Amino acid sequence: MDDILDASIAQIATQIRKREISPVELIEATLEKIDQCEPQLNAFITVFREESLESARRVEAEIGNGKDLGPLHGMPIALKDIIYVEGTRSTAGSNFFSDESPQFNAALVAKLRAAGAIIIGKTNLHEFAFGVTTENPHFGATANPWDTARVPGGSSGGSAAAVVVGCCAGALGSDTGGSIRIPAAVCGHVGLKPTFGRISVHGVLALAQSLDTVGPMCRYVHDVALMMNCLAGYDSRDVHSENQPVPDYTDGLEQPVRGRRTGIPKQHFFENVDPEVERIVGEAVKVLEGLGVEIVELDLPSAPAGHEVTLTLLTAEAGEFHQERLAAHRGDYGVDVRELLEDGLALSATDYVKAVRVREIVRREFSQAFEEVDCILSPTAPIAAPLRSTHDLSGGSESNRIRPRLTRNTRLINLLGLPSISVPCGFVQVENSDSEVGLPVGLQITGPWWSEKTLLQVAHAYERATPWHTMNVKRDTFSIDN
Amino acid sequence: MDDILDASIAQIATQIRKREISPVELIEATLEKIDQCEPQLNAFITVFREESLESARRVEAEIGNGKDLGPLHGMPIALKDIIYVEGTRSTAGSNFFSDESPQFNAALVAKLRAAGAIIIGKTNLHEFAFGVTTENPHFGATANPWDTARVPGGSSGGSAAAVVVGCCAGALGSDTGGSIRIPAAVCGHVGLKPTFGRISVHGVLALAQSLDTVGPMCRYVHDVALMMNCLAGYDSRDVHSENQPVPDYTDGLEQPVRGRRTGIPKQHFFENVDPEVERIVGEAVKVLEGLGVEIVELDLPSAPAGHEVTLTLLTAEAGEFHQERLAAHRGDYGVDVRELLEDGLALSATDYVKAVRVREIVRREFSQAFEEVDCILSPTAPIAAPLRSTHDLSGGSESNRIRPRLTRNTRLINLLGLPSISVPCGFVQVENSDSEVGLPVGLQITGPWWSEKTLLQVAHAYERATPWHTMNVKRDTFSIDN
Repeated sequence: MDDILDASIAQIATQIRKREISPVELIEATLEKIDQCEPQLNAFITVFREESLESARRVEAEIGNGKDLGPLHGMPIALKDIIYVEGTRSTAGSNFFSDESPQFNAALVAKLRAAGAIIIGKTNLHEFAFGVTTENPHFGATANPWDTARVPGGSSGGSAAAVVVGCCAGALGSDTGGSIRIPAAVCGHVGLKPTFGRISVHGVLALAQSLDTVGPMCRYVHDVALMMNCLAGYDSRDVHSENQPVPDYTDGLEQPVRGRRTGIPKQHFFENVDPEVERIVGEAVKVLEGLGVEIVELDLPSAPAGHEVTLTLLTAEAGEFHQERLAAHRGDYGVDVRELLEDGLALSATDYVKAVRVREIVRREFSQAFEEVDCILSPTAPIAAPLRSTHDLSGGSESNRIRPRLTRNTRLINLLGLPSISVPCGFVQVENSDSEVGLPVGLQITGPWWSEKTLLQVAHAYERATPWHTMNVKRDTFSIDN
Repeated sequence: MDDILDASIAQIATQIRKREISPVELIEATLEKIDQCEPQLNAFITVFREESLESARRVEAEIGNGKDLGPLHGMPIALKDIIYVEGTRSTAGSNFFSDESPQFNAALVAKLRAAGAIIIGKTNLHEFAFGVTTENPHFGATANPWDTARVPGGSSGGSAAAVVVGCCAGALGSDTGGSIRIPAAVCGHVGLKPTFGRISVHGVLALAQSLDTVGPMCRYVHDVALMMNCLAGYDSRDVHSENQPVPDYTDGLEQPVRGRRTGIPKQHFFENVDPEVERIVGEAVKVLEGLGVEIVELDLPSAPAGHEVTLTLLTAEAGEFHQERLAAHRGDYGVDVRELLEDGLALSATDYVKAVRVREIVRREFSQAFEEVDCILSPTAPIAAPLRSTHDLSGGSESNRIRPRLTRNTRLINLLGLPSISVPCGFVQVENSDSEVGLPVGLQITGPWWSEKTLLQVAHAYERATPWHTMNVKRDTFSIDN
């Protein structure tokens, strides 16, 4: 049964339709897997046991009666716990919302349910989705499945861990500075941060209004494409949602990538990268070259400035969002998030305006780059998953060093609203790790606005050409841990 | 000769080519007109006498030799004095730049010169283009040609006065909160604020980075279309310039407007409007209805909030731009502008973020409105030109009341980056005015991004259907003043 929990959404869907597994069996196996993993992973804040089994029984009847809602019908999907599900608590990783439940569903919950998906549970995250390394002070740390002494990346670490070990067929995360892609990279799965405005954030608690996105986290590129088919589209309730045509993201996924032009930035993205991570990403680039992709060096001199100002926008916007709550309940925030919010509240309008000025310059630079290339390649994160012990709340010097380092290739992408996918590209051997195969590394592929389809094609071609898409090696490892 | 100074650009160009007037005669007459008007109007800060005559002699030779650069060839064009002309001072209405000259031309200067236009002079403006009513503390007030005791509107008042009395064939102004459209309305000519990013602001001193535009100010709609043909287009040096196709703005200008849908906002734009202005604009709407334009009531409930937050963005961005200079040379700023800049510098990032949030809501609301209609009609300014005496630097209560009132229908449009044209639509009789025909009123026509061509068509149809496009009545009035 473990095999089915590792399978792709398409494979599971096929097996359900062949009656090789029933929807109820699938959900039972998933819940059992959750029970098995949670003591070590702590990936979930809430698990919907009865509701999921009830849904599975309904799905079983529907499919038996010939009512087939497509590939997501009956799939167990986990949601980061800042996504509202009507009538159930949505903690956002904080203590504020324990006693209240949203009275409406997030737009994407309605879409998933219309496609027949089963919301299996709500996953652990950084407090208010703000952070990438420190532990959640209210719900505890989620462990990295490859090495439970290490962080799963943030802030969507719970979703990442759940996806990787098979506690769901796919998950939703949010990404304001890298919070889908960093966990995807350091946990070893595929994560897509879509174009700003591509998937509605209606019913997703805000972090930073000009940077927030939600997107799919899956084991396979094809799964991400299937999720995008369900989730993408205009929503008038999300003020940033844009009325752009939605393609079929699976259509043409197998197209050859020969002749595609991809850029390697000269600046920023390959600086301060762990040498082994750099080597592995270099090999991934060679794989793509072997598939006929043309590699071009790109000048992006403003990238470091963009990285800097993203933090200004992020803390200012988050500070504004939390201003009243922070004033009334300062002590109920974790130290780490409180400090970041207070940094944001201390900023002047002038600081913000300067940051926006830089944003426009970087945006222009990337626009010009995308006249040369279809997408940009880089390591998703410059290092593998760090040890949890180096990221405690006291914020020592190493912690301070690692936080900006982990986000240095991702948060700049949020600044520009670009779509960006992280796909597993190998393992690094790390001292002091108990993972026998090493720790996962992610390849980040970033494109111009609305280019998700191109990114999925390139990521899919890479995935098919490499062994990293077989997750068995990882599953075995986690079984060893067990 | 006065007739030719009132004529449209196309008419002047035709007469030049028919040898009814020579380019040198045209410039001589224009300079003479400037000399005649300046004692009362004070519309110019710098007049390029010798250079213009020299250019006119060159144009005369060129046209004589069959080198015809098109309708702007030989036209005297005035520039608001924040637009850089290489090697000549550009004061921006302040004292800071008296002894220095920009070492490059604004993008639009190069475009005008390539089209053969002659830069006749630099026009008076509010200090740093910041303001709509108070007098410039360094270069004195420009008078409204219809009643020299009244303001010409701001901040491009010098350009407006020069256009109206025939001191140029057309002028350029800048519009950050209404600074082209308000002077166009209260001086009685046509002014177009283009889509944000449509005309390069490279070489135009900034006021507020997310709101600034430059655009043409002319006596006739067709002239504005001709100027747009010269000025619109992408410029990589302007970070907000967008690479959108540039149509021929004169092509199809005479197209019937029957069936066009135009909106009348229920909220904000017709509130707090002088009853006589409202009546005149109502008649203009009826004229358009008579031409077959369909009139639709529009719900825009967020418009007042948009009006409010525009000032936040404007002062914050202007404050940031002036921060260092203000710290070093506080006393060299006029009181009025200094106070506005200090207001901006006192704002927090949170204030700015809140304003951006509102901007997005209003943007969405207008986007939805433009699914219903092709354009939106309103008074450009809710009142006619106020007396200069009510707008002195002391900032009495009436002054404070009139400033937000004058910009209430225009600055919101800058918030959204929309194109918007003001076209003369009649005269109001005002007590205490020595203008026999009354004071001009403007009809504002606003469309979605890149809809300049539609706006010009509607404005042109209106202009052709009414007597307001014959400027003679106004010329006579100013002659009486003389």
